[in-house]
Amino acid sequence: MALARIARSSLKRSGGTTGYYTSEKDMLSEGLSTRKFSSPSLENVKVGDNLSYLSSIRRVNQMSFGSRGISVTPQYQCPAPLRIVEESDTECDNPRYPGLEETKPGEKPRVVVLGTGWAACRFLKGLDTKIYDVVCISPRNHMVFTPLLASTCVGTLEFRSVAEPVSRIQSAMAKDPNSYFYLASCTGIDADKHEVYCETVGNVGLPYDPYRFKVAYDKLVIAAGAEPLTFGIKGVKEHAFFLREVNHAQEIRKKLLLNLMLSENPGISEDEKKRLLHCVVIGGGPTGVEFSGELSDFIMRDVSERYSHVKDYIRVTLIEANEILSSFDVGLRQYATNHLTKSGVRLMRGVVKEVHAKKLVLNDGTDVPYGLLVWSTGVGPSQFVKSLGLPASPGGRIGVDEWMRVPSVEDVFALGDCAGFLEQTGRQVLPALAQVAERQGKYLVDLFNRVGKQNGGKALSAKDIPLGEPFVYKHLGSMATVGRYKALVDLRQSKDAKGISLAGFLSWMIWRSAYLTRVISWRNRFYVAINWATTLVFGRDNSRIG
Amino acid sequence: MALARIARSSLKRSGGTTGYYTSEKDMLSEGLSTRKFSSPSLENVKVGDNLSYLSSIRRVNQMSFGSRGISVTPQYQCPAPLRIVEESDTECDNPRYPGLEETKPGEKPRVVVLGTGWAACRFLKGLDTKIYDVVCISPRNHMVFTPLLASTCVGTLEFRSVAEPVSRIQSAMAKDPNSYFYLASCTGIDADKHEVYCETVGNVGLPYDPYRFKVAYDKLVIAAGAEPLTFGIKGVKEHAFFLREVNHAQEIRKKLLLNLMLSENPGISEDEKKRLLHCVVIGGGPTGVEFSGELSDFIMRDVSERYSHVKDYIRVTLIEANEILSSFDVGLRQYATNHLTKSGVRLMRGVVKEVHAKKLVLNDGTDVPYGLLVWSTGVGPSQFVKSLGLPASPGGRIGVDEWMRVPSVEDVFALGDCAGFLEQTGRQVLPALAQVAERQGKYLVDLFNRVGKQNGGKALSAKDIPLGEPFVYKHLGSMATVGRYKALVDLRQSKDAKGISLAGFLSWMIWRSAYLTRVISWRNRFYVAINWATTLVFGRDNSRIG
Repeated sequence: MALARIARSSLKRSGGTTGYYTSEKDMLSEGLSTRKFSSPSLENVKVGDNLSYLSSIRRVNQMSFGSRGISVTPQYQCPAPLRIVEESDTECDNPRYPGLEETKPGEKPRVVVLGTGWAACRFLKGLDTKIYDVVCISPRNHMVFTPLLASTCVGTLEFRSVAEPVSRIQSAMAKDPNSYFYLASCTGIDADKHEVYCETVGNVGLPYDPYRFKVAYDKLVIAAGAEPLTFGIKGVKEHAFFLREVNHAQEIRKKLLLNLMLSENPGISEDEKKRLLHCVVIGGGPTGVEFSGELSDFIMRDVSERYSHVKDYIRVTLIEANEILSSFDVGLRQYATNHLTKSGVRLMRGVVKEVHAKKLVLNDGTDVPYGLLVWSTGVGPSQFVKSLGLPASPGGRIGVDEWMRVPSVEDVFALGDCAGFLEQTGRQVLPALAQVAERQGKYLVDLFNRVGKQNGGKALSAKDIPLGEPFVYKHLGSMATVGRYKALVDLRQSKDAKGISLAGFLSWMIWRSAYLTRVISWRNRFYVAINWATTLVFGRDNSRIG
Repeated sequence: MALARIARSSLKRSGGTTGYYTSEKDMLSEGLSTRKFSSPSLENVKVGDNLSYLSSIRRVNQMSFGSRGISVTPQYQCPAPLRIVEESDTECDNPRYPGLEETKPGEKPRVVVLGTGWAACRFLKGLDTKIYDVVCISPRNHMVFTPLLASTCVGTLEFRSVAEPVSRIQSAMAKDPNSYFYLASCTGIDADKHEVYCETVGNVGLPYDPYRFKVAYDKLVIAAGAEPLTFGIKGVKEHAFFLREVNHAQEIRKKLLLNLMLSENPGISEDEKKRLLHCVVIGGGPTGVEFSGELSDFIMRDVSERYSHVKDYIRVTLIEANEILSSFDVGLRQYATNHLTKSGVRLMRGVVKEVHAKKLVLNDGTDVPYGLLVWSTGVGPSQFVKSLGLPASPGGRIGVDEWMRVPSVEDVFALGDCAGFLEQTGRQVLPALAQVAERQGKYLVDLFNRVGKQNGGKALSAKDIPLGEPFVYKHLGSMATVGRYKALVDLRQSKDAKGISLAGFLSWMIWRSAYLTRVISWRNRFYVAINWATTLVFGRDNSRIG
């Protein structure tokens, strides 16, 4: 089977609709029934038959790639091409898989973008849709304005003020006849056939039968992001909250308000009140620090007014193994430490050993009971990225060259947190920052528009077109708020360089203005400003919904 | 056992802390172990022991009233007092149940309010907290501004703009040392002992071990609302959405956006697209009509712009057994029918027989495939109200007299959708309207404040105090919006009376202004206005969160 696949590598873009087996007999000789290769006749289903029609698609699809993982066939350097192929070669070639077929001559080339984060959305925003059709595939239909996410947990901002629908970022997906947004997860890529495989998502937490389909691409941009690092620590995934998505912020808010109310119940012991109202943040990076700052603001202004029965029990502890805000200037770090401590945030050195439902245990054996645990220790390669089996950068991201290409396969590019420079480029892997992702998206979309104008948009057609200058990242500085109208602004270009660094109210003004102008739509700029103003006037809203 | 309880009826307010049994032996002779009567020592639990401490409370409580239902002992007219008592008499008397004990002489009297709807919140808002301490018990910590709820489903308004936290309605619960809000459900009432029994709520859909406690009252106001009527039709609870709470609106919105996106997936058949995008509303009352109007607005303005690939598939069908808006003037009904039809809402006469996951079946055998099903056929008595076993009004609500008292028990009052005039009062049960509930809340709180000033606030102390004028309801008219800047205003005092009725843009202006001034806080008035304005300028937000 492995041989068969390798041989097929030369049949690139062979149409994909004729299949690999030539007769039913061949298929049967593999021990498979014909059933799974028959296409469900989608057009002829009667109303009322929907259930059975859907389940038959499901059956077909599960056979065809439910278990196949991924079948990228890198042209060089692939660490385990044989293993992938051997797994389920016969099941890759369902010839009539529902989906978008490859573009025909005369049609616009199709760019498929995986993800709706900073990199993907910046790319989508800039794409010349006169040249390209675009298909974006992501399990969420909006971009999250991550730097302001921590503020939504305590009600300083509304959730929807920090979410930007992709159709507002690139309206072609809503309007153009051949451009689409699909609410789905990508489950695999076949770089030979220039196809991605997807399954739809359902509501979080509810049972759901996904619908599976494929999309053929001329060019593929992988900007699918990263996953929170848990270092394999027991109990983190079960008990801690991450802070990467809007629904994470919603869950944190619900838990915080629930704990505040539960602790007011009659007969609750002192220790239990303390536990319920102990908010523990793991990780002293910008997210952890900003969330701690927001929490202490919330406690000082809103909890003391609205939960006066329990206001003396609530505490915030920030646990960090090393130093907080380690990428910032030493003066700013000191400022942040002082400010947080003054605001009532307890800073604690420690390494988490394991997490239980109501307490965590540190490496030195200390028990830390908690009511709310937020985990923000950075991100690493996602399961999806690992499953691709592409040559990796140091740290396990998808390896790219200086033009953001994945050099082991044709017409595939990677951006943002999921991409890193290959070792042989001699460049360092860039940090997982919105700033980096946004700049890469901008760079690549300019490259695409240029190449597209020279008729290099179609699959395998850009070989002789010069790509222009390679991507160069220039750090513009870092910002973080620490609560109570104070922020840090570090304008040094790197950790060891010299430059301007500011802390205090002026920085906070800069921080707010900078973000306000970077929120993408006017609607959200307006809402963020309105939210900030009403928080100042009325305090934070504390209705607990759901 | 029944005898024992009836005898005890005369021991009203006997302290409640000494219990009924005098020795362990007595208890054991009932076949119960001592274990369940031992109080968990709440004060001495060490951190880390929290889990076991909570579970031991749970065990105690389950024994003591987990299975007891309710033990109201009406002084007359109780339909089944013996049955209730026989069930679990021995388990009612756990002497050291955690909770708020009865108020002592010299302390302010304690009013306990069950619910946070229109009646409860109007009552809470007006209560003189110099005279009374107040405890509000409800599974949600906010009031829902129900007339605007339909607008939140499609993004015309933000969810939090229609939710008013109770602590903003009555700040004593947040600040006064002996006033509280408890996020909990009431599970039972012991009218003899003047106690209510509660258990805390968790996050919707997640497993949760409730914490149980009791609260002693001097006066009790039951304003716990009603439940949607499903007429025992199979599948309604499993597959249909109601529209009574903010999280219902959130779920409807999520489902609607999900279906819009799923229908865009490649390979979906025409019939399946039609099904996914068929929004069916059952019930032609104001809620059903307003939701249909909002949906058609959303479709005409936003779907056609943002989901142009599938815009021709989306449809709204409103199914009603009789006439839509039956309480409105015949001219207005005709206007609404014309307007909805012109806006693309299909009006259909029919009675639902059963509901399946993807279709419903009408009485005449017609299959109606649907993607979203919203059920708004009115409300009826809740399980909680039925479980109380109190004398009922026609229609099964808690029976009250002209002063909103529950005459079968002392110091208990009922308001809003859960209360109805007893047949012997000679009055009609009032409709389940916000207007009725709000007026009753206002009436009762004035009565309470008057009685309280004459030292009638404590339990069993108001007997000789005149209650003043009985409650009289005067209908001020009805309003409903039908979409596209049009509304109906019917100012007749009853269905058969004469009076002014208006329809059109002017009515829509009246409708909006009337609601805007009735939203309780300035914050929400401001946000509703801002939401309306941004919807006009930017269209509705379509990010799908969670």
